[in-house]
Amino acid sequence: PDYIVATYRLVTRDKDLRKRAESIAVGLTVGSWTDLPAARQAQLKPYCGTVGETRILAEHQDGSILAEIEVGYPVRNLTPRIPALLTTVFGKLSMDGDIKLVGLRLPEAFVRQFPGPKFGVAGVRQRLGVEGRPLIMSIFKSCIGMPLDALVEHFTEQALGGVDLIKDDEIFFSEQLATPEARVAAYVRAAERVAGTTGRKVAYAVNLTGPTYELRDRARRLADLGAGALLFNVFAYGLDILQELAADPAIQVPIMAHPAVAGALYAAPRHGIAASIVLGQLLRLAGADIVIYPSPYGSVTLAKEEGAAVLGALRGPSPHKPCLPAPSAGIHPGMVPVLLRDFGTDFIVNAGGAIHGHPGGATAGGQAFVAAVQAAISGRPLREAAQASEPLAQAIARWGVAE
Amino acid sequence: PDYIVATYRLVTRDKDLRKRAESIAVGLTVGSWTDLPAARQAQLKPYCGTVGETRILAEHQDGSILAEIEVGYPVRNLTPRIPALLTTVFGKLSMDGDIKLVGLRLPEAFVRQFPGPKFGVAGVRQRLGVEGRPLIMSIFKSCIGMPLDALVEHFTEQALGGVDLIKDDEIFFSEQLATPEARVAAYVRAAERVAGTTGRKVAYAVNLTGPTYELRDRARRLADLGAGALLFNVFAYGLDILQELAADPAIQVPIMAHPAVAGALYAAPRHGIAASIVLGQLLRLAGADIVIYPSPYGSVTLAKEEGAAVLGALRGPSPHKPCLPAPSAGIHPGMVPVLLRDFGTDFIVNAGGAIHGHPGGATAGGQAFVAAVQAAISGRPLREAAQASEPLAQAIARWGVAE
Ligand SMILES: [Mg+2]
Ligand SMILES: [Mg+2]
Repeated sequence: PDYIVATYRLVTRDKDLRKRAESIAVGLTVGSWTDLPAARQAQLKPYCGTVGETRILAEHQDGSILAEIEVGYPVRNLTPRIPALLTTVFGKLSMDGDIKLVGLRLPEAFVRQFPGPKFGVAGVRQRLGVEGRPLIMSIFKSCIGMPLDALVEHFTEQALGGVDLIKDDEIFFSEQLATPEARVAAYVRAAERVAGTTGRKVAYAVNLTGPTYELRDRARRLADLGAGALLFNVFAYGLDILQELAADPAIQVPIMAHPAVAGALYAAPRHGIAASIVLGQLLRLAGADIVIYPSPYGSVTLAKEEGAAVLGALRGPSPHKPCLPAPSAGIHPGMVPVLLRDFGTDFIVNAGGAIHGHPGGATAGGQAFVAAVQAAISGRPLREAAQASEPLAQAIARWGVAE
Repeated sequence: PDYIVATYRLVTRDKDLRKRAESIAVGLTVGSWTDLPAARQAQLKPYCGTVGETRILAEHQDGSILAEIEVGYPVRNLTPRIPALLTTVFGKLSMDGDIKLVGLRLPEAFVRQFPGPKFGVAGVRQRLGVEGRPLIMSIFKSCIGMPLDALVEHFTEQALGGVDLIKDDEIFFSEQLATPEARVAAYVRAAERVAGTTGRKVAYAVNLTGPTYELRDRARRLADLGAGALLFNVFAYGLDILQELAADPAIQVPIMAHPAVAGALYAAPRHGIAASIVLGQLLRLAGADIVIYPSPYGSVTLAKEEGAAVLGALRGPSPHKPCLPAPSAGIHPGMVPVLLRDFGTDFIVNAGGAIHGHPGGATAGGQAFVAAVQAAISGRPLREAAQASEPLAQAIARWGVAE
């Protein structure tokens, strides 16, 4: 049969790695093996896990070892849903000492049963009308406690800078002062006014919040009202909900996955699940169109290889459309050439602090990014381009140009 | 305003703990503060976070410190749902270095907005007809790959031992050989046959599986068919789904939360979220009636204080009904007096290996637990009770009596 192969990194004093792997392979599939009659063994064989490679990575002075083991789980044991996958490969095991799930090889036929992104890179580009360059996204600095008119003002200030997308704060859950529906409706009107001035259209990524069984209807409603994308705290809600939303043909709007709470799963060195699986593989399977994740540049980062592995999972070979990565934190206009070098053109320049902290205000902040992206795409040095753009000149004076 | 107070334990080289706490308090609520005009500050004040206590727990030789900081988040910023709570108190922060969420103090008015357990200890007891003693649960040893008739045989063998509850393997997701509906229907009939012999009724905890937006209907259907409880992989699916199921008056059956995948959140020493929050506080808020979690006895355990904190969260003072704890792993009949000493009578004796590994088979395994519980409740020494119970005598010969 086809197998899902999970790789675990563990610290243990027990050097019989094959025995450990065998006990996982049996315990997390058919439950028992050696004590079964031959007829039952024959019957259960296609459902029983298998042991793959085992290897010792390091031997420690205290007698423990750092090792990796591989275990195969028959695909037929699962349904093509993330809860089945996670419960099988890292359910009980997650509680069993120093053990981290670091790899997951999935048969292509299994992968194909997941929806994957509905829009992907090309679909998002087409909806937003942006080709040949990275997209630029601004993040609301403040949302909570602001009445709708102040929010619209804040939105407009960002939109006037010429950015492509403006996203809610992911912590924006309260609806006392402005519901998501009211925000979408108001921002769509504001975006139309701005387009009259700038000639550029801007999309709004609204935070999809509320009780689980109301999210699907709300997603449809927000899409109908004109939301440009749905921001979704997928790790606080659940990956299967993302899969439901992505597979729903009535929800015709890209989904932007936020990594909130994901650090609780991936950040520990010897526990949890690798970032490449959490932020990469699982989000693409479940169907995120856009994935926000820690950039290599800010204070909140992933290890270099881990970041590369996330990126590979988001847009490497797969039967699914590629996700659009939105590396986040530490990004200012002077970094745009480095971003293009590191990410190509298919990504989102995710700008928070450098928009709102721009000496000329948020509109100038957006303008600086627009000028930087135009320059970098046409291969002009930023300092040269800054001679024709006061906002870019101010940004460079403030944050410099990264090498 | 009322505040949710989160306590974080962190390792840092930056000893200005108040500054770190302030940046969290502002950044994860109103976004900015010092640069705002006074009128806006006055408007946002009720939405702005506050800094509580900060303390250094240890200073390390490398110049870093282990510290705790407290941050208050206004309740008005959130909705009474777990995704709002987690995204606010440990969303971005979860990715921000060596930091673990170790405490969460919630205002009572906020807690009251959550459903909590629908049945709780008294409700589960009433449904199962068990008073004055711990309940006894048997766990299917094998589920995957077995045709329905073999499953019914396996169920019957366990039921004949006199246990109160029999639960599915949590990894049982495939429906090729027997759907959850078919299992409930078949086991209800098997339970009736067994009751004719033993005079005891046994309930079946069926694994609630499938796509999220089908779970609610399936839960109602399984309840109507006669399921005794719904086993739910809440951490693989999402805590908000549990909250939806618990709050649904049409789902009249206790929910048994399984801790699968939870270790990825709680097990790391310097990352993630404390077990007392993950397995205790959040599960009770969201409405689990029964909570399976690592016992203090097996190979898979929690630290002693952490286990006590989980138990405290499950049944300590609260506006909600108490959850019934099902400490799991390392439990055999000879441990029952220790279990009663450690857990009182309101818990589930969760027996896996010692039922199926009993020298006389699974029926004798259940009988041994029944005899042990009867003896322990009436204060008779197990070895004395074993003179009247061959299954208990065999179990003691195999596993001994714990002190
Ligand atoms: Mg923010
Ligand atoms: Mg099992």
